[in-house]
Amino acid sequence: MIRIGILGYGNLGRGVELAIGQNPDMVLAGIFTRRNPATVATEGGSVYSVDTLLEKKNDIDVLILCGGSATDLPEQSPAWAKHFHIVDSFDNHSRIPEHFAACDAAAKESSHTALISAGWDPGCFSLQRLLGECVLPQGQTYTFWGKGISQGHSDAIRRIKGVQDARQYTIPLEEALKRVRSGENPDLTTREKHLRECFVVAKPGEDLARIEKEIKEMPAYFADYDTIVHFISQEELLANHSGMPHGGFVIRTGATGDESNQRIEYALELESNPAFTGSVLVACARAVWRLAAEEKFGAKTILDIPPAYLSAKSSEELRKTLL
Amino acid sequence: MIRIGILGYGNLGRGVELAIGQNPDMVLAGIFTRRNPATVATEGGSVYSVDTLLEKKNDIDVLILCGGSATDLPEQSPAWAKHFHIVDSFDNHSRIPEHFAACDAAAKESSHTALISAGWDPGCFSLQRLLGECVLPQGQTYTFWGKGISQGHSDAIRRIKGVQDARQYTIPLEEALKRVRSGENPDLTTREKHLRECFVVAKPGEDLARIEKEIKEMPAYFADYDTIVHFISQEELLANHSGMPHGGFVIRTGATGDESNQRIEYALELESNPAFTGSVLVACARAVWRLAAEEKFGAKTILDIPPAYLSAKSSEELRKTLL
Repeated sequence: MIRIGILGYGNLGRGVELAIGQNPDMVLAGIFTRRNPATVATEGGSVYSVDTLLEKKNDIDVLILCGGSATDLPEQSPAWAKHFHIVDSFDNHSRIPEHFAACDAAAKESSHTALISAGWDPGCFSLQRLLGECVLPQGQTYTFWGKGISQGHSDAIRRIKGVQDARQYTIPLEEALKRVRSGENPDLTTREKHLRECFVVAKPGEDLARIEKEIKEMPAYFADYDTIVHFISQEELLANHSGMPHGGFVIRTGATGDESNQRIEYALELESNPAFTGSVLVACARAVWRLAAEEKFGAKTILDIPPAYLSAKSSEELRKTLL
Repeated sequence: MIRIGILGYGNLGRGVELAIGQNPDMVLAGIFTRRNPATVATEGGSVYSVDTLLEKKNDIDVLILCGGSATDLPEQSPAWAKHFHIVDSFDNHSRIPEHFAACDAAAKESSHTALISAGWDPGCFSLQRLLGECVLPQGQTYTFWGKGISQGHSDAIRRIKGVQDARQYTIPLEEALKRVRSGENPDLTTREKHLRECFVVAKPGEDLARIEKEIKEMPAYFADYDTIVHFISQEELLANHSGMPHGGFVIRTGATGDESNQRIEYALELESNPAFTGSVLVACARAVWRLAAEEKFGAKTILDIPPAYLSAKSSEELRKTLL
């Protein structure tokens, strides 16, 4: 049995806890939190203060870090990689090289294995982008996200004055998908690829037109997109927009040397983004445990892992049943 | 530059030759054939008799075997793995364990690396089946093939008395795809998953009803399917059915521990099956060359290879641009 520790218990931590229960070769060693453990309700796992994590070193084979990429993981991953084999879901794409270097140094000097940026993007989608360009070297790769809730964009709306609550859906545009699938290799602008649809609860008496304008003109988040804003009640938001669906597409189109058009498409449709991400992290923890057993220390990503290491089955069984 | 040898020059060998031309870190070292080399027209590559292959040992880094799985590869792969690092596309699923064992023994005793059963199924599809069940351990995997030409089924029709020529398309049934995508986890019979559509050229004066009946009742090939038979002229067959398109779907549906439904779908739409397969084999040859450089000898499959090894880019570049 591989003993998994969870550090940080939000939606992702809960997803990891539930995923451990679906993998018969895994057991939850404990959930570690910065909050008062008595206040944390789990799916059954025992909760401890993060202050006790180091004492539990011998009870944990792999530590899965479930904090955020903005401030938690850049500090936590290199720090904990000095004491544990770790998995994280660091998803700030532009800072991955830096995060990798920090985790690699910490893990190598202490003989640990650190798998960073696991999940579905980065993660499953990254792997598909890689496979696509390897098997169709002359071609183009397109990534679309959605339909799904973007936590970052929902947060951005909630920071606007007069907004009580909000959810933002990122929606890939059918017309763009159609053009990509046709093999025409279009150059698509940001606006042509995705639509942003917002469900907003305004505080009483606020100027809705002003809020809508502020959303639509917000740089980086909305200004480059076509954005639809709906004002709804808090009740309606809770009733119809409480889920955390997400997904998307990685499409590689290209021509082989005989000028034949070839298309590869990978799609995810997820009712729960954090539950799926948690499930990916748990499979990655298995691979980390195996790499560590082979003394393959340092930082890794999903691109470095023999896929068979993700599975509880033996290589013989995989060849016999899946190949 | 990685120097690639090609053994066997049919549609797949030609696909490999063309794929080498699309990969700037690869060069064709020679095409080896059992035929008279003077009679083989290539896309530009030099042709030699297979009898000279062993003499060229020092000019070839990886040998790609492009023979058939029925009789060529079971003999050739273990035999040549004694002298070269090899890649093959052995696709007789039920005999893969046996083929793996034979290649593993030959490659290990001579310090070679042998990647077997590469291509898209087995190959890309196998990898997706593995990833699907690792990240959604509670779920079901479905593989659909087509729409595409099945060489084996076309050959089977051509063996019927009175048939001059034939092409058979394997077609996945939309209704089955719809049910699988819905997440209902249906148990589908063979007949419910695929349709078989045949275009047949009969010899003059033959009894078409008898040919149609023989096709539809042929055990293993057609009896378990709904089969449509069209009789057409040789001209029409050549004009409209000379391509070798193929493709298909690997779909994994499952629920995470929070009872959310999650769906992963991988699809290939290929205008040319052998050109795509050849392109996959060439990417695999790069991985073989790297594994061999690390002295990781013996038989491997795509499930054993760190995906980054398939790429000409460095790990740093992959992390920066694809993760």
